[in-house]
Amino acid sequence: MPDAEIIAIGSELLTADKVDTNSLYLTDQLNALGVEVRRKLVVGDDRALVSEAVHQALAGAEIVIITGGLGPTEDDVTRDAVADALGRKLEFREELLGWLTERFKRFNRPMAENNKRQAYAVQGAEALPNPRGTAPGQWIETMVESNGRVVMLLPGPPRELKGMFAEECLPRLTRRLPPQVIRTRFYRVAGMGESDLDQLISPVYKPFTNPVTTILAGPGDIQIHLRARGATHEEADGLLQQIAPEIERLLGDRIYSRDGSSLEAVIGERLRALRATLCVAESCTGGWLGERITSIPGCSDYFLGGFLVYNDRMKTELLGVDAGLLKIHTAVSEAVACAMAECARAKTGATFAVSITGEAGPESFTGAPVGTVVIGLAGAGLVPQAKTYSLFGDRNGIRTRAAQWALDDLRRWLDSSAL
Amino acid sequence: MPDAEIIAIGSELLTADKVDTNSLYLTDQLNALGVEVRRKLVVGDDRALVSEAVHQALAGAEIVIITGGLGPTEDDVTRDAVADALGRKLEFREELLGWLTERFKRFNRPMAENNKRQAYAVQGAEALPNPRGTAPGQWIETMVESNGRVVMLLPGPPRELKGMFAEECLPRLTRRLPPQVIRTRFYRVAGMGESDLDQLISPVYKPFTNPVTTILAGPGDIQIHLRARGATHEEADGLLQQIAPEIERLLGDRIYSRDGSSLEAVIGERLRALRATLCVAESCTGGWLGERITSIPGCSDYFLGGFLVYNDRMKTELLGVDAGLLKIHTAVSEAVACAMAECARAKTGATFAVSITGEAGPESFTGAPVGTVVIGLAGAGLVPQAKTYSLFGDRNGIRTRAAQWALDDLRRWLDSSAL
Repeated sequence: MPDAEIIAIGSELLTADKVDTNSLYLTDQLNALGVEVRRKLVVGDDRALVSEAVHQALAGAEIVIITGGLGPTEDDVTRDAVADALGRKLEFREELLGWLTERFKRFNRPMAENNKRQAYAVQGAEALPNPRGTAPGQWIETMVESNGRVVMLLPGPPRELKGMFAEECLPRLTRRLPPQVIRTRFYRVAGMGESDLDQLISPVYKPFTNPVTTILAGPGDIQIHLRARGATHEEADGLLQQIAPEIERLLGDRIYSRDGSSLEAVIGERLRALRATLCVAESCTGGWLGERITSIPGCSDYFLGGFLVYNDRMKTELLGVDAGLLKIHTAVSEAVACAMAECARAKTGATFAVSITGEAGPESFTGAPVGTVVIGLAGAGLVPQAKTYSLFGDRNGIRTRAAQWALDDLRRWLDSSAL
Repeated sequence: MPDAEIIAIGSELLTADKVDTNSLYLTDQLNALGVEVRRKLVVGDDRALVSEAVHQALAGAEIVIITGGLGPTEDDVTRDAVADALGRKLEFREELLGWLTERFKRFNRPMAENNKRQAYAVQGAEALPNPRGTAPGQWIETMVESNGRVVMLLPGPPRELKGMFAEECLPRLTRRLPPQVIRTRFYRVAGMGESDLDQLISPVYKPFTNPVTTILAGPGDIQIHLRARGATHEEADGLLQQIAPEIERLLGDRIYSRDGSSLEAVIGERLRALRATLCVAESCTGGWLGERITSIPGCSDYFLGGFLVYNDRMKTELLGVDAGLLKIHTAVSEAVACAMAECARAKTGATFAVSITGEAGPESFTGAPVGTVVIGLAGAGLVPQAKTYSLFGDRNGIRTRAAQWALDDLRRWLDSSAL
């Protein structure tokens, strides 16, 4: 299957506050055809640099898509630069001029002299009509060392680009490409570090280049993408089967989602299915757990509320945690985490409660090392339980992980046979 | 002045839903030094492709910054690829291994075998410490056809990248670049939309290309950077004076920080100075306000805790808001916001309380339009007050802004002459 390279032209795309978003649309469309994007490049409005970039792209990619720089002004250099890179001339197209003139007449606007620049096309190019703007596109087929290449020139404005790609380029591309199917598998994993996970599963995926395995890690949240390409659904599925079942076996219940859902969404679905309600009691995370749970639309079906208890007095006065317990065990203890969860449940009447207490640093208040976090769980008719973790990172990292670990402990508890 | 090229490494950056944002930060920083970015490239985790890209970049740019691909796994190919491109070897660095071992020990985690990959550096490279993660960076100086080049290898996670660039690369770059003085002014502004702000101040800054004015907008939080370049401090300061005082006058107390401090840090300082304490009562934000306040180290000096009250029953049972008030005014009303703040203050004994209640969508429960958010404030000896806002965005955007508006209302209240 051929690879593609996308080149976005425009000096404004090299400033500190602009990103090229056209390439995201194009990537999505290309992937659906089985074409991978090997590189994406952004170049300013400089004829020599653009020409060089096109030349480099043609050396590696069978499909080169160039966006932007097709306007009527002097700094629209794409037409010239592509002609340079291909060693071809620009030629004036009578029919493009006619089309431009017609368009300006239709909108009752005078056509500026420099719009005539848009009537030029690279020798041998097929002009692509642009019903949404003035810049025609171009479809150029070429041979590089006996390999066929396609170069597409598309306008920069997203509406024009998308329309032209869908209407003109997709049908042409589909005719050129061998029939092929991509099948994917996606896992989200909580409660493991990236290198621990990689050590566990890399012996499984490493021997294979198809499927391609990509691992993306956030704090305590890892995404694994498997992508297999084949001529048919069956072939692609068969390739996936070489590694997917073994990865699933190794990760077991560490996998919390196979469809991209977030941990909080998975928990919400589970609570809704159980017709159960939830409350929280947070110390070191200060509301992060509640924030994540309430990020899900419709969470009022199961989330009641909770308590932020940032010091010992709040733990006793707001929640009703026994002062003696705090004195004996300190706030960062399994006894107190259990009591926080139980008290929150009692005060709110929720079916389940999660609590977090810990040392997020930079200083420790209880003597427990920074990173010590205790997660408590309570549920109607269940014995409360708590677990102590040593979490990694600075204050922000520890707090992020604490909320993530709490959600994951809750998820696994809800999924356990206890219920 | 030399040009730069930025290469982002990572197959995930070639998918249809990820963009490289690190290059925006880097562009901003480079521009401030007078360095222009000539190209930006995204390449997948492929050793040969990355090596080729580095090779091409070195042919044209004096400064090449490569981000990502420095992790411990097999698909982290940056170290190898850069060594290939430069025709150098990778060498094992005892001190990097020591640093990694020490870091894992400090966080009480076992070090996986493959983390040792991160102890390798390109021959002749200076290793750059990474206090925020496990991937050390590298600073490599080289000669290409008698021109000095600098290649920087920086970690992909934005926090690590920014920290390392600011602390390690900026000082080294400044020493290499021709002498030039840059003077900056920085403002953070809350409670205004970007286009309102731009309409207000663009007549002041637009006529000037030096200072350069950069406006970076987040939801309800705008950063304004002014950067003047001159041969001397006096010249650069003089240039700044052409626009800075007028911008400050126009924005007035909308400016909450001149040193980059976050809103929650500014509030923390103010509360500490007043020897006052704070609590929260949150409905639609579900903990986001508490999370932001507690993101500041040492916030236990002034933050006590609070209540997450996600439905009417919790507002009456946990906080003690009068049920009649809820019935008459609904939960999204100034009367209820005031009562929430007053009740939270009464229950915790805090000097001040902030409350948030609103409709974050997608559906409205009270009939108030989605985006309606009411912020309440209460303080010892003060009459409680509330304000109603129509906030913009999807659920996430409305919740982000609600927390931001609440913090800003509190800040301006604390700064008002009332206290």
